[in-house]
Amino acid sequence: MHKNFKGIEKTVYGRGSFNQLGDIINEKRNDNDKFMLFVVDNYFKGKELEKRIPSKKEDIVKFIDVEAYEPTTEQIDNLRDEVKKSKGIPSAVIGIGGGSIMDIAKAVSLMFTNEGSSTLYQGLNLIKKPGIYHIGVPTISGTGAEVSMTAVLTGPEKKLGLKCEWTVFNQIVLDPELISSVPRNWWFYTGMDTYIHCIESENGILNNAYSHSYAEQALKLCRDIYLGNKSGQTAENDDKLMVASLMGGLSLTYSEVGVCHALSYGLSKILGTRHCYANCIAFNHLHDFYAEGVTEFKTMIAKHKIDLPQNLSKDWTADQITAMAKVAYNLPHMWNHAIGPDWKEKITIESISELYRRL
Amino acid sequence: MHKNFKGIEKTVYGRGSFNQLGDIINEKRNDNDKFMLFVVDNYFKGKELEKRIPSKKEDIVKFIDVEAYEPTTEQIDNLRDEVKKSKGIPSAVIGIGGGSIMDIAKAVSLMFTNEGSSTLYQGLNLIKKPGIYHIGVPTISGTGAEVSMTAVLTGPEKKLGLKCEWTVFNQIVLDPELISSVPRNWWFYTGMDTYIHCIESENGILNNAYSHSYAEQALKLCRDIYLGNKSGQTAENDDKLMVASLMGGLSLTYSEVGVCHALSYGLSKILGTRHCYANCIAFNHLHDFYAEGVTEFKTMIAKHKIDLPQNLSKDWTADQITAMAKVAYNLPHMWNHAIGPDWKEKITIESISELYRRL
Repeated sequence: MHKNFKGIEKTVYGRGSFNQLGDIINEKRNDNDKFMLFVVDNYFKGKELEKRIPSKKEDIVKFIDVEAYEPTTEQIDNLRDEVKKSKGIPSAVIGIGGGSIMDIAKAVSLMFTNEGSSTLYQGLNLIKKPGIYHIGVPTISGTGAEVSMTAVLTGPEKKLGLKCEWTVFNQIVLDPELISSVPRNWWFYTGMDTYIHCIESENGILNNAYSHSYAEQALKLCRDIYLGNKSGQTAENDDKLMVASLMGGLSLTYSEVGVCHALSYGLSKILGTRHCYANCIAFNHLHDFYAEGVTEFKTMIAKHKIDLPQNLSKDWTADQITAMAKVAYNLPHMWNHAIGPDWKEKITIESISELYRRL
Repeated sequence: MHKNFKGIEKTVYGRGSFNQLGDIINEKRNDNDKFMLFVVDNYFKGKELEKRIPSKKEDIVKFIDVEAYEPTTEQIDNLRDEVKKSKGIPSAVIGIGGGSIMDIAKAVSLMFTNEGSSTLYQGLNLIKKPGIYHIGVPTISGTGAEVSMTAVLTGPEKKLGLKCEWTVFNQIVLDPELISSVPRNWWFYTGMDTYIHCIESENGILNNAYSHSYAEQALKLCRDIYLGNKSGQTAENDDKLMVASLMGGLSLTYSEVGVCHALSYGLSKILGTRHCYANCIAFNHLHDFYAEGVTEFKTMIAKHKIDLPQNLSKDWTADQITAMAKVAYNLPHMWNHAIGPDWKEKITIESISELYRRL
């Protein structure tokens, strides 16, 4: 039984394509209660991009601070309830920001039509009805959230996605101009999310010619951007990074993430560490699993003089480490892919705790 | 203004995925007049695959001979009228075959809901209404018809596609097992369609990081399949060819074909030459435009001892050559991409005729 996956309905790519967003949403303005909900990274409050958002007076523009922590189920439920109470159901949700904003836009779109708390729907195909029309406009590239069928949320019980075909965006607008001002460290951490997606996708039992072709090309692009003679934060590389993020995400559609993402989820759930940064912290010590990838990663870290702390675990309690290891252990699809169906014979809470102690 | 393109709604990829077709269509069986229309390459009549088609007694299974010529507007109109008269409007159209069958499935799906002859709709965005649900199951890879937003038809006036977002398949089933029995010459000609798509996509003014990334990876796959140590018609290469065809097609979505396709359309329109074969005949002599690509193409021809006739033009009349040149000249989007906006200063009916005389 092979996966039957839903693609993004419509894609526009190119410098300046953000200017087409107004025309795109105008086609939807008569739907539902006739207003748009923009969810925008708080970073853009007061910046040039704020003025360019094609909102009308009836619309809600919600700036959201995503710097402190990953999106939560509570946050999504509150946003949905608040908007529903004040104006009803939007014609469309437009997310403008990085991976967290993409996840918020996808999740809230689903929660306008599915009753109760989003905690009820964390998992595969638990959502009952299609969400409302939702558009993703990434301003940071790398997470692949713009193309994935998952809206990852941290809930009281678990960090797990609302995963179904209706999660996928109806429209994405990929304008490489929007990612030009990403701070250097985050340009690196988020780009490495794509790099790690590809390494994990390739190194596991679910990899096939489809996922491999996408991963191979996304890796080629990552090497141009972070390793080659022309590496660095240039316009040409921003063009490439936006495509790499898409391709890395599409590779995962047919394959799966692995050990690094399992550990990273534990860090985010227990310590609130941001996803891409958590990935880098973990990947740096996963030479036993991804030898070539980790070596190349270290070269990229060195080349761009990226600040990646070590010895973090000395400040963690034994209970925290065990709690993180339990979160990671409870992601069987990742271990199955990375280690094989007999992964439980090789991986234990204790062996995962040992990995955390390396960080 | 950047293109806003429609993606395939759902994709299943993998060996044996053809067995999932029955479940996929069962979800649609209550739509419209509750029967399925299968359009199947006549090649499979009496073969093993015929028995595996998941048809029920109420369905129409139409075997179509696509060996002799490219799909025509008349053929589509007749098929639509005949099915409508006998049973009404199908729940879905399922195309099982190569590029011609893909084009027939896409075109007839649109013509069930758009009145009059398909000749009325040859061009960009002339179709008025979405077609019925349509599924593509390629049995030859290379044309990219499984992913494109064009259903190319030869009409009394022109060879031109029904091109709009509703042309794109709702579902594709990519089972590399289905392409294993493609005759050697056609395995080559159709694969070269992808190769030529990439060369043309890359060499023109519309190429960007998106189209380039897809073309680069599709070319890499083509080189594995047709040039490398492990080249040839193997299971591993069939897996790759199916992905290459998809990626070559996606490269074109953002870019455009060029000189070879313009000439090829003339050959098909005037002489009825099959598309992929016509491409190869033309590309072989386009060193002036695509020097590296043509050199590599000749290496592949030699490596696989492919039969590609030369000196065909000695049997063509001057009128035939002029007629072909006129067809080619009247594809301004291809010349614009390949030569630039001032192409009319460089390309004339006479200069195109001269290209035809080389073949």
